[in-house]
Amino acid sequence: MKPKITLKDIARELDVSISTVSKALKNSKEISKDTKDRIKAFAKFYNYRPNNIALSLKNKKTKNIGVVIPDIVHHFFTTVFRGIEMYANKMGYNVIVCISDESFDKEVINMEMLANGSIDGFILSLSAETQRRNDFTHLKELLDQGIPIVLFDRITEEIECDKVILNDAEIACEAVNHFIKSGCRKIALITTENYFNVSESRKDGYAVALRSNNIEIDQNLILTLPHEIDNTDVMTKFFKENSIDAVLCVNEIFAIQSMSVIQHLGFNVPSDISIIGFTDGILSRYSSPKLSTIAQHGQEMGELAAKLLINRMESVEVIEEPFKTEIINATLIKRGSSIN
Amino acid sequence: MKPKITLKDIARELDVSISTVSKALKNSKEISKDTKDRIKAFAKFYNYRPNNIALSLKNKKTKNIGVVIPDIVHHFFTTVFRGIEMYANKMGYNVIVCISDESFDKEVINMEMLANGSIDGFILSLSAETQRRNDFTHLKELLDQGIPIVLFDRITEEIECDKVILNDAEIACEAVNHFIKSGCRKIALITTENYFNVSESRKDGYAVALRSNNIEIDQNLILTLPHEIDNTDVMTKFFKENSIDAVLCVNEIFAIQSMSVIQHLGFNVPSDISIIGFTDGILSRYSSPKLSTIAQHGQEMGELAAKLLINRMESVEVIEEPFKTEIINATLIKRGSSIN
Repeated sequence: MKPKITLKDIARELDVSISTVSKALKNSKEISKDTKDRIKAFAKFYNYRPNNIALSLKNKKTKNIGVVIPDIVHHFFTTVFRGIEMYANKMGYNVIVCISDESFDKEVINMEMLANGSIDGFILSLSAETQRRNDFTHLKELLDQGIPIVLFDRITEEIECDKVILNDAEIACEAVNHFIKSGCRKIALITTENYFNVSESRKDGYAVALRSNNIEIDQNLILTLPHEIDNTDVMTKFFKENSIDAVLCVNEIFAIQSMSVIQHLGFNVPSDISIIGFTDGILSRYSSPKLSTIAQHGQEMGELAAKLLINRMESVEVIEEPFKTEIINATLIKRGSSIN
Repeated sequence: MKPKITLKDIARELDVSISTVSKALKNSKEISKDTKDRIKAFAKFYNYRPNNIALSLKNKKTKNIGVVIPDIVHHFFTTVFRGIEMYANKMGYNVIVCISDESFDKEVINMEMLANGSIDGFILSLSAETQRRNDFTHLKELLDQGIPIVLFDRITEEIECDKVILNDAEIACEAVNHFIKSGCRKIALITTENYFNVSESRKDGYAVALRSNNIEIDQNLILTLPHEIDNTDVMTKFFKENSIDAVLCVNEIFAIQSMSVIQHLGFNVPSDISIIGFTDGILSRYSSPKLSTIAQHGQEMGELAAKLLINRMESVEVIEEPFKTEIINATLIKRGSSIN
């Protein structure tokens, strides 16, 4: 018997990307005929059958849930994981985690590996690269094979499945309104690239709050940074060159870095510049002053995602329920870094 | 065919602990004859065969490594995980994580689940409860079945396998000597229960440094706390009631909590009280003053653990190499919370 072959194996053997293999096997127009023929011939020779997975799965419940998150060193994702585990364990399920490290290839490889009989369903937050590429073939394939998926936080409209998200636009709007009520007018936003659905929604909320208070949006006050690396130099330039009296940051590490930069420049937080971040992590609680922040209720989000997945997996209805998108309401926690 | 039964199933059906089942099947003297008979009869009836796992495993390499860590919201463990992943991915292996949540039962259940054909070998740091109970039957069973295990950081002498540890005693001694050189004499230790091998080693190092500088060990200056919860009240009492000029904390969160308590009591860090913590995480870098700390080089530790495991798994020697314990040298990073 020939060994069982995976998308990853085909990609490696033919020296193409996993995405190319996946698209070629789906007969995508994006891939040239030559490449498609080569990939299909290879897949056929080695008897590649994605549907094997689903068959083996249908017959044997593992009582395991696979979780794929973009980053393990991240308070929000780890609290979501805790919530998933709490609910899943209570319902008799174990949880296995894989980390995509924000990489499309690792997301695909990990999901393919887990789908190979180890788990009954997935809970997933998309990697940065997957969102940037807008390529969701691997998710579509698993869903086609009858493996249920729940997306949380970083989701896409292109996949039909159960989803759990935060009211990102609304809560960003609430945070900016809080700045405005305390007298701030020159309000900055430090955010990540727009291909993150969450960053886009938060930016929308920021813009809505400014407009509804008749404050013009100043593009110079919107700083877009790479995802969560040390941006001290860029931030220093930003706060030096612009007159700013408040800043909303789309994650905790940007907020803490901003505070450090602002204090280093000799400004006082919050009397000169107020700060609000996203994610009520441990950094926010031990900074000085303590950081005003948006609690995302990760644990609640995780519990809800697990509940949606387990309901879907254990459903015995012939006609499946329509997919749901549940919204978690974030909470603005006012602490020392903003004026009340 | 009867369904495949696990230790967890037997424990649940007979309403006993997993540890009891495991010991009974090993014919341990700790378990009463009645209980043993009952468990063995049940296991026999359902055809429980732990060795099945090893057989299926020997025949089919998964190219997956299972990692079991006590906690996901923990800088040290997540950086070790990163190191494991970096090395493993480079060598063509995927990594699956399960979290024991410091629970013996969850450690056993997760390892049993992963050993069931999903992985080729384990990298593990023992849960608090496993260390407290001193029960390693589940590890012995897996090793007997030919599944290699590498232990890191929280290890035990009772299991023969490859291990990676930190020079905990030495580096704690170095930290205390650093305090003494800067003129401190009343040096406190904030630590966790002694059943953690790492806490015990760090306490040993603390004692050695004091003794070799002719400073008597004052038991009142050693505060033993539950593992990483909020201990603000106990710490406040500790720093109020004792005259202390320096404190060594066995983890980052104790150090940050101490700093917050000390500053709240009106003392200055470091001129009144110096602080050194373990784990060079993000908290240490963004506190004010920045925290002097012991870098545990988690990534290096993870890479080394993965290397030991993969070498062992890929070894084709008939006579196996003897097990190794590799020691990572920690580094004392001097920042603002201690006097240089």
